[in-house]
Amino acid sequence: MPSLAGLFFWIMDKFKDIKKITISKPLKLDCGKTISNFPIAYETYGKLNHEKNNAILVFHALTGDQFVTETNPITNKEGWWITAVGPGKSIDTNKYFVVCANVIGGCMGSLGPRNINPETNQPYGLDFPVITIKDMVRAQETLLNHLGVKKLLCATGGSMGGMQLLQFCATFPDKTFSAIPIACSSSHSAQNIALNELARQAIMADPVWDNGKYFLKNVQPKNGLAVARMVGHISYLSEKGMQEKFGRKLQEKADYEFSFNADFQVESYLRHQGYAFVERFDANSILYITRAMDYFDLSKQFRGGLVEAFRNQKTKFLVISFTSDWLYTTKENKDIVIALNSSGADVSFSEIKTDKGHDSFLLNENEFLKTLKGFIDSMYEKFKNEKGI
Amino acid sequence: MPSLAGLFFWIMDKFKDIKKITISKPLKLDCGKTISNFPIAYETYGKLNHEKNNAILVFHALTGDQFVTETNPITNKEGWWITAVGPGKSIDTNKYFVVCANVIGGCMGSLGPRNINPETNQPYGLDFPVITIKDMVRAQETLLNHLGVKKLLCATGGSMGGMQLLQFCATFPDKTFSAIPIACSSSHSAQNIALNELARQAIMADPVWDNGKYFLKNVQPKNGLAVARMVGHISYLSEKGMQEKFGRKLQEKADYEFSFNADFQVESYLRHQGYAFVERFDANSILYITRAMDYFDLSKQFRGGLVEAFRNQKTKFLVISFTSDWLYTTKENKDIVIALNSSGADVSFSEIKTDKGHDSFLLNENEFLKTLKGFIDSMYEKFKNEKGI
Repeated sequence: MPSLAGLFFWIMDKFKDIKKITISKPLKLDCGKTISNFPIAYETYGKLNHEKNNAILVFHALTGDQFVTETNPITNKEGWWITAVGPGKSIDTNKYFVVCANVIGGCMGSLGPRNINPETNQPYGLDFPVITIKDMVRAQETLLNHLGVKKLLCATGGSMGGMQLLQFCATFPDKTFSAIPIACSSSHSAQNIALNELARQAIMADPVWDNGKYFLKNVQPKNGLAVARMVGHISYLSEKGMQEKFGRKLQEKADYEFSFNADFQVESYLRHQGYAFVERFDANSILYITRAMDYFDLSKQFRGGLVEAFRNQKTKFLVISFTSDWLYTTKENKDIVIALNSSGADVSFSEIKTDKGHDSFLLNENEFLKTLKGFIDSMYEKFKNEKGI
Repeated sequence: MPSLAGLFFWIMDKFKDIKKITISKPLKLDCGKTISNFPIAYETYGKLNHEKNNAILVFHALTGDQFVTETNPITNKEGWWITAVGPGKSIDTNKYFVVCANVIGGCMGSLGPRNINPETNQPYGLDFPVITIKDMVRAQETLLNHLGVKKLLCATGGSMGGMQLLQFCATFPDKTFSAIPIACSSSHSAQNIALNELARQAIMADPVWDNGKYFLKNVQPKNGLAVARMVGHISYLSEKGMQEKFGRKLQEKADYEFSFNADFQVESYLRHQGYAFVERFDANSILYITRAMDYFDLSKQFRGGLVEAFRNQKTKFLVISFTSDWLYTTKENKDIVIALNSSGADVSFSEIKTDKGHDSFLLNENEFLKTLKGFIDSMYEKFKNEKGI
């Protein structure tokens, strides 16, 4: 572990060997500012076949990154979707070419607030422009051209990944043959904005955050960021799932300690998750990415609302929700299905019964993984028979 | 407003004129420590009648206090239960004698971490003993003797107030003729412990908190405390209620600002609620009271579990829950009903249909207020006819 003083360059150095393209073409962001010559970091698994019809694009969620499966070379942890993606898995990398890019605003190699601002030669911090889900998606679309993929077999993503996917389909209606939005929403609800605001307030309340300038001192607002992460972990589980997993079990003690230490396992879990997160994520990135999620409202972009967003879609959709997900409820997912139906799109819907809450899409949920596999494999058969891709 | 240096004494001075008794008899707390000669601050509304059979004890929730109705003389705000308590209201102060005491651990005049520790002549801070719901209730029972009330007509409370009430009935089975636990639980769930832990972590993450010693410097860890309060406000509303109240409405602007200011009304609401709270509550009190809630598990106190806790109850119960309350769900309230039924107690149950979430018990919910009134008035008729109180 390097000294704190060297931390910044050590972090930047770690990203040297990951896959990256530089997008030279200027991208005008929704906020009005323009970025150019910016990096998009990505990873691929499996091989693009000769016909170039086996590519699957995965969009990652808030704290995800491009390392979908295998071992993340930066954090040395398992890829975040190792349950679903890999050889012989639902998204079978023996068969399909899987691509995932780090979102702009993130901190795994794509342009984000930790990068150097060419105007100041310092890390951006809060000088980084406020980005949107649409900005993220437009940046990633460029990557497909670079990889020689004209049309995807499928695009998928859960949570914010699903939001990117809906935006991708609305903005680039001919770019994917099929799409699987999972546990998401076409516009962020008041409760979800509130939870994100809570996370942001926790970060901004930490004096170390220093108006986003902490990076100049090679420190992290770790207390605020840890609290922000705890908000997430509470919202990713269901009440019932949490009760089954932790209940009132005590953490390695026979009885209450009558103190403010972690007496309960659920407290210990939250503290651990919160402080472990600090090692792998950047506080300013949480601010930017949660803001993009809150701003997401697909219906706002089209005069005719959500139905208009999906007008003339040829993409075949499978929308998936989880019964115990209270962050992106079945109702919100059904609203997407209703809009797709109203716009005449080809859409299926599957609600998976589970107590595991929003986290379900990342877990070994058999019915979910079978549904995913069945849909993708059948789409591949259809796509192969289609002419003139 | 006094200078910061004078804040502590100014605060203490404000409590001079409120009703208070000093309990001289030592109280051995669940943690093993003993307190004695400690203050219990309280308020009363209406008059105790000659027969002394019209007394209603109200237990307050986490951030409540003894000022149930009229104007709180310390904060100059409306009493927290002005919707339900007052002349001609459901709990009619023209008819009934209403008593409410500030819980120990609180900050409205009863013994709490802000009081002077006689051993050090400094405010307790974290030297204050960790208290339980049972400790709170035992301290309050003493007050009834002081007021000359042998047996209450009714005792009631929502949220933590309901938890105190369940404890009160279990510990003092002959002290109330009827009881109305509202929107509560007989033991804190993992999700509720997690939300409380989140609030505590937010406070303890604030360097101003300084291990609970902030009071020596006449400051408050206001950022941490504000974030803690925001957690509460999110959990008190339902997802649907929040969507109806705020949705994606912007705060006095025509479009997104592309910044981290409060663009959405729900953000503005949370910030306002968070920072307003800092003016009226003490951060250490939040730590102590949430801890007491987390430790609450009535079934743990009795070998035979919850059924045994209510064995031989003559008290007539009405349990009330709200359909959209996700903090203390109908299921948790029904579990109380099932235990009461199993122990042979006299119990009714009412689930009120509303989108207002946990907050419903504080609001003008017509069906709820009618139910409350109907039950209390009928209990009064029965209690009057009972002999030998």
